[in-house]
Amino acid sequence: MHGPNLDLLGEREPEIYGRVTLDEINREMRNIARERKVELEIFQSNHEGEIVSRIGEGPKRYSGLLINPAAYTHTSVAIRDAISASGLKTVEVHLTNIYARESFRERSLIAPVAVGQVSGFGAKSYEWGLMALLDLLSPRRDGK
Amino acid sequence: MHGPNLDLLGEREPEIYGRVTLDEINREMRNIARERKVELEIFQSNHEGEIVSRIGEGPKRYSGLLINPAAYTHTSVAIRDAISASGLKTVEVHLTNIYARESFRERSLIAPVAVGQVSGFGAKSYEWGLMALLDLLSPRRDGK
Amino acid sequence: MHGPNLDLLGEREPEIYGRVTLDEINREMRNIARERKVELEIFQSNHEGEIVSRIGEGPKRYSGLLINPAAYTHTSVAIRDAISASGLKTVEVHLTNIYARESFRERSLIAPVAVGQVSGFGAKSYEWGLMALLDLLSPRRDGK
Amino acid sequence: MHGPNLDLLGEREPEIYGRVTLDEINREMRNIARERKVELEIFQSNHEGEIVSRIGEGPKRYSGLLINPAAYTHTSVAIRDAISASGLKTVEVHLTNIYARESFRERSLIAPVAVGQVSGFGAKSYEWGLMALLDLLSPRRDGK
Amino acid sequence: MHGPNLDLLGEREPEIYGRVTLDEINREMRNIARERKVELEIFQSNHEGEIVSRIGEGPKRYSGLLINPAAYTHTSVAIRDAISASGLKTVEVHLTNIYARESFRERSLIAPVAVGQVSGFGAKSYEWGLMALLDLLSPRRDGK
Amino acid sequence: MHGPNLDLLGEREPEIYGRVTLDEINREMRNIARERKVELEIFQSNHEGEIVSRIGEGPKRYSGLLINPAAYTHTSVAIRDAISASGLKTVEVHLTNIYARESFRERSLIAPVAVGQVSGFGAKSYEWGLMALLDLLSPRRDGK
Amino acid sequence: MHGPNLDLLGEREPEIYGRVTLDEINREMRNIARERKVELEIFQSNHEGEIVSRIGEGPKRYSGLLINPAAYTHTSVAIRDAISASGLKTVEVHLTNIYARESFRERSLIAPVAVGQVSGFGAKSYEWGLMALLDLLSPRRDGK
Amino acid sequence: MHGPNLDLLGEREPEIYGRVTLDEINREMRNIARERKVELEIFQSNHEGEIVSRIGEGPKRYSGLLINPAAYTHTSVAIRDAISASGLKTVEVHLTNIYARESFRERSLIAPVAVGQVSGFGAKSYEWGLMALLDLLSPRRDGK
Amino acid sequence: MHGPNLDLLGEREPEIYGRVTLDEINREMRNIARERKVELEIFQSNHEGEIVSRIGEGPKRYSGLLINPAAYTHTSVAIRDAISASGLKTVEVHLTNIYARESFRERSLIAPVAVGQVSGFGAKSYEWGLMALLDLLSPRRDGK
Amino acid sequence: MHGPNLDLLGEREPEIYGRVTLDEINREMRNIARERKVELEIFQSNHEGEIVSRIGEGPKRYSGLLINPAAYTHTSVAIRDAISASGLKTVEVHLTNIYARESFRERSLIAPVAVGQVSGFGAKSYEWGLMALLDLLSPRRDGK
Amino acid sequence: MHGPNLDLLGEREPEIYGRVTLDEINREMRNIARERKVELEIFQSNHEGEIVSRIGEGPKRYSGLLINPAAYTHTSVAIRDAISASGLKTVEVHLTNIYARESFRERSLIAPVAVGQVSGFGAKSYEWGLMALLDLLSPRRDGK
Amino acid sequence: MHGPNLDLLGEREPEIYGRVTLDEINREMRNIARERKVELEIFQSNHEGEIVSRIGEGPKRYSGLLINPAAYTHTSVAIRDAISASGLKTVEVHLTNIYARESFRERSLIAPVAVGQVSGFGAKSYEWGLMALLDLLSPRRDGK
Repeated sequence: MHGPNLDLLGEREPEIYGRVTLDEINREMRNIARERKVELEIFQSNHEGEIVSRIGEGPKRYSGLLINPAAYTHTSVAIRDAISASGLKTVEVHLTNIYARESFRERSLIAPVAVGQVSGFGAKSYEWGLMALLDLLSPRRDGK
Repeated sequence: MHGPNLDLLGEREPEIYGRVTLDEINREMRNIARERKVELEIFQSNHEGEIVSRIGEGPKRYSGLLINPAAYTHTSVAIRDAISASGLKTVEVHLTNIYARESFRERSLIAPVAVGQVSGFGAKSYEWGLMALLDLLSPRRDGK
Repeated sequence: MHGPNLDLLGEREPEIYGRVTLDEINREMRNIARERKVELEIFQSNHEGEIVSRIGEGPKRYSGLLINPAAYTHTSVAIRDAISASGLKTVEVHLTNIYARESFRERSLIAPVAVGQVSGFGAKSYEWGLMALLDLLSPRRDGK
Repeated sequence: MHGPNLDLLGEREPEIYGRVTLDEINREMRNIARERKVELEIFQSNHEGEIVSRIGEGPKRYSGLLINPAAYTHTSVAIRDAISASGLKTVEVHLTNIYARESFRERSLIAPVAVGQVSGFGAKSYEWGLMALLDLLSPRRDGK
Repeated sequence: MHGPNLDLLGEREPEIYGRVTLDEINREMRNIARERKVELEIFQSNHEGEIVSRIGEGPKRYSGLLINPAAYTHTSVAIRDAISASGLKTVEVHLTNIYARESFRERSLIAPVAVGQVSGFGAKSYEWGLMALLDLLSPRRDGK
Repeated sequence: MHGPNLDLLGEREPEIYGRVTLDEINREMRNIARERKVELEIFQSNHEGEIVSRIGEGPKRYSGLLINPAAYTHTSVAIRDAISASGLKTVEVHLTNIYARESFRERSLIAPVAVGQVSGFGAKSYEWGLMALLDLLSPRRDGK
Repeated sequence: MHGPNLDLLGEREPEIYGRVTLDEINREMRNIARERKVELEIFQSNHEGEIVSRIGEGPKRYSGLLINPAAYTHTSVAIRDAISASGLKTVEVHLTNIYARESFRERSLIAPVAVGQVSGFGAKSYEWGLMALLDLLSPRRDGK
Repeated sequence: MHGPNLDLLGEREPEIYGRVTLDEINREMRNIARERKVELEIFQSNHEGEIVSRIGEGPKRYSGLLINPAAYTHTSVAIRDAISASGLKTVEVHLTNIYARESFRERSLIAPVAVGQVSGFGAKSYEWGLMALLDLLSPRRDGK
Repeated sequence: MHGPNLDLLGEREPEIYGRVTLDEINREMRNIARERKVELEIFQSNHEGEIVSRIGEGPKRYSGLLINPAAYTHTSVAIRDAISASGLKTVEVHLTNIYARESFRERSLIAPVAVGQVSGFGAKSYEWGLMALLDLLSPRRDGK
Repeated sequence: MHGPNLDLLGEREPEIYGRVTLDEINREMRNIARERKVELEIFQSNHEGEIVSRIGEGPKRYSGLLINPAAYTHTSVAIRDAISASGLKTVEVHLTNIYARESFRERSLIAPVAVGQVSGFGAKSYEWGLMALLDLLSPRRDGK
Repeated sequence: MHGPNLDLLGEREPEIYGRVTLDEINREMRNIARERKVELEIFQSNHEGEIVSRIGEGPKRYSGLLINPAAYTHTSVAIRDAISASGLKTVEVHLTNIYARESFRERSLIAPVAVGQVSGFGAKSYEWGLMALLDLLSPRRDGK
Repeated sequence: MHGPNLDLLGEREPEIYGRVTLDEINREMRNIARERKVELEIFQSNHEGEIVSRIGEGPKRYSGLLINPAAYTHTSVAIRDAISASGLKTVEVHLTNIYARESFRERSLIAPVAVGQVSGFGAKSYEWGLMALLDLLSPRRDGK
């Protein structure tokens, strides 16, 4: 699930966010899903309400959630409540290292209801995050 | 008016929010409205913008507003401004006692523009809140 | 239980607190108690210590507590501890909307140990609060 | 671009916002645009997501942005990111002097990504803001 | 009206509070009252509740209030509310300069509901404060 | 009225403040004043006290005030009090967008006593600000 | 000296405060006093004012003070001033480790005027505290 | 010594500062000085630097200082240092009750280096303050 | 590089940190290193100084750094400076989701000098973090 | 266990820490241990890392921990984590009353993971602390 | 350049500032200047505005600036802006160690625009500061 | 005494710290010591504990201390206590102007226990600092 402004990826401030587009990220994630033989549904929205609604459908349709809440990371109690209500295992990803930017980006409202977080690796954050999520849902080896 | 994630009521974290569903709450409120012979319009939305728009129609269509702004209680200046602009007598309700939860839930942006607040009685908060609102709109006895 | 200065109700700053006197409020509450067939004991004190002592007798004499701690809402850890120690189901009421006044009135030390709160409806806050408390003690219908 | 609740202008709390309606403001801005021979597109939304999406289309369709983010001024990181991503020269306007109101209105999340700000002149804020924006886009005289 | 611990004056930490006893202060104030031909009632209590009750009787018995709330200056919302409810013209006095001591003594909850304050002149603070109060109640000259 | 260091404009840190000198700004403002047929008095001082004194003469000599308080924006309660005492309609201007600079520049002590603010447009801030002030003093059209 | 709510000890929230009653603690302390051949006066009150008054009698009647101010630890400047005024050597005790509870319990207004503190050992805190106080008053060995 | 803007007294915001002019205050103070047979020098300045310089001459020319630092109360470390360096016994006066106004007026940088403070009695603050200062310099009776 | 207390992994509070031991984690990381044909040096220390010294040798001996600074995450400016001085590409890992624990664990002094962060996946955090680091050092595909 | 700088005890600032040396304290503690027939291991270190390592060996070698973390009380999350990981029953002691010193000494990072605290009795703090610890490990009487 | 109150040096609070007068400091600095064969201009003012103006002349008349801003260190944005605008290499000196005094003296507004700072050595601070400044302007050896 | 990471000087981030190595600084300081005929012992450590221990030996071996605590400036209460315990006259030096960097570098825990501070002159800070220290230990001229 991609939060606000991520549809502009690749064009938008490439010195901060890199030149990979959202389509390329999605393609790569579909590859991983195919390899790991899981179904993957991708969704981008600039609307807090749509993100909340989609997560609300969660427990019936999905087993886990990979989310880059972008700007809503720092302002949306509603998305936090939706994740918490859905009971979905959730991994939070960020393209950039949010701790090295403006101070209001330091606080993530989402982090406390996620299992874990991957941030700072650009488009790669999604890949590692997805693999981590798949591992959480069906661990390859016991004890890990 | 029901804020974000309240469509999931009854399923969602029942140890916090109880097992009553939104439908059951709505049914009970319609009963009260029928008894008190007032028209009641019920609305749930996960979208801050829709809530703002609906309240904006307020003064033409409604005499008062009963609202559980849920997560938007703590983050939405827009809903606060809409209530204040609408001039509607407003009662704020919460299922849980928001003062006994995370610290970011302690501040309500809505409370200062509402007449009063009923919180912590689960589904009953809606009933007492509705009765209080109806009393505000047509007091049964003078001097109260 | 009425906190400090509430003996002056009706005379004191009527533009903030209304013109209903404490006697009228008490009479109305006794009516409700009679209708619901419960015993009601009413107590007003300006002394933090007396309020603490009376609550301390609580579990032996009372089944529940309706309290308007007034000024002590914001300063008394002792009353908070008394409520918490007594184990009484407690409903907190306020005549005014405390969130729309001075900033030091925004924090209630009592709220986190109460079940719920009713505020802003003037003398009516007591009535809704009492009814809510009675419902908590002997629910009229299951599932609510 | 007009933020939330601005559709109610003229009716809403006229002692704060004045009696000019949004239509009258828009008409005046169209006059200025016609005189200065530029195309002007006007947009009002109560939805943070719609505002984000429209700004996201920005660099392809517009040369500059005049925005009154209203309540979102103080809460929307998403709109801030959209403006910053769009690269549009942006002027922020406010009907009222936001620094003379509630303390949570003192901080503008938008200001740091705008070129400048015009506030406090009622409907006139839009006019001066529009003229300032047009000047930024095609300076009438060099050296200024 | 003298707040907590003032009964110990003269014996207690004389390097901070001086050697004048409360009796001597009271005697001096009675002299001033006699000269100005006004009735003066003096009251000392260590109990917040007693102070609140006494002020609550105010409007019926007194025309003005001279108070050194001592430690309660910094912690008692109840006394503040009592003064505000009583409507009595109130002058706040302190033996010491409270702004030159521990930082928690810098904030006076009482000051905003008093007309004025006299502090730092030891026992003399009472005298100047009483004279100022008497002047407020029956100004000797117009225009002042 | 120009605050401290503005006499250095054009030479001083041109990458922040631009290359237009104070003389050029003043000339342009005199042109506007001539066109609008109003008298304009220009004053620059590095002394807080001189600025206070000049504003203090205000109501007798001027109808309105256009001020760039520069560094004193953030530190001078005296200038704030002078504006407030003078009763002059005041417009505050800034060359730069003060909200995009050091955090201690975010707070303007002057803004709450001004009608409005124009900032971020370099030398143009003065022009728009002057025109806005003239409009406030003799509105060209009613209803605006 | 026992502060508010301590009369309920043993019954009140035993999972936090243990099952020892105040009577048992007092008996144990009397034993220690008898062994050490000192007179011991025990006092419990829910009233801040009574505690202040009793400490105020201090220097005439007592040589030292062992106090568990309970809830007043965090709110009473009056008790702090009373201890400081009395000049009594004071040891502060707490049943629980107040630093591992709610954040408003972290600050002790009493600690800075006490010689030392014993906390977290349940009823034993009183015993160690009493022995420490007796040692302070009549040291068994020099140099310690 | 009168701080900035006090030359405007009587004309300036009379609903806050009253209608007495600075001349009338000065005349009244000269009367008091004559009665008490002391020399009095009166000085008003809007310049922080002039006030600092005049206080700096202090110990050679004056025995005590009566000062209303007005706006500089809250911002001037220089005046504080001057008073502290001069060693003059200093009384601080304010026309209004500064604790009942904007929050930035609550902190006085001057108070910690003054002996005492008189505030809130309008022009009378000067009179009581002057009398208090004279008493400090030549106490009329011992023990006070 | 493993920070303080990590030698106890598997034994220490397994309900928080899981049952995997540091040896098992190291073995898994050696496997990954072997597969990716890179040299890996593993180091655990409870000493801030040793960690600083080892990182200081960095640029001569290593191409990148994988670090779980554990408790030093929140307190060590020295490790932060060492990483920044070394110029090593650094990935920060945490076993637990540090944003869902005590508030003093929310701030990472290390994050701003790391490229990215992986947290919350238990022992797996190390694996994903190592793979991410290896990718940073020799990207497998361009454009990522 | 003794934290940093405690090796200098007796020589170092005796007006704050007293004249008893660390050797004398250790001798006294060995006496108590002998009387109570328990083994006692004493350890002093200026190195945060050594303290962490020694506590890490804890559960295998010790049954309880008596610690004066000195300066590390206020800065070491690593020692806190070590105590919490070790599962050792821990008593924290301080020579001085840390709440009566600089404000940065008011916060103890160690207190929340200790059972209790003894502070302010100089060398005696160790004795009472040791006895309290021994009692915790093998209570002499039930119910206490 | 000497800030406010420094003309009183030697007389003023010698226990804090020492007994050396400003004249003696100036003489010593002239000696150093003569030895190093540079021109030195000395200036003292109690007026913030005069200091600003003098620095504003800077780049035309001076190559560097040695300043003890005294009280203005903590309050003057105007002097900070003047230094920054002047482009002069600036060394800040203080007689006392400002970090060991009142907390409001801990923050220097000037430090961030100075090259360096010398503080705490009394009159010697000026000497070391002057030598450091001369070295900055014409380094005696390369590479340093 | 050199704090953590200073062994890397000259290689490490030369754009911040310059190109002079620690060896060159040490050589220069030895020259000064030789000229001034004093013994100089140089010590660098990345270990907080080693620095504490070495300072602890202080009063027996050294007459004064020149220290650049680097990162420990901002985090080490232990080094602060060691300096304070040692009683050594201490001068604090910094290569860079710590007040112009990250905000967590603004607070020095060491400054309040040092006599003075020299910062911002690169390697030269050591030289001026050493000369200042030598002067403190054996003043060349009286009265300075």
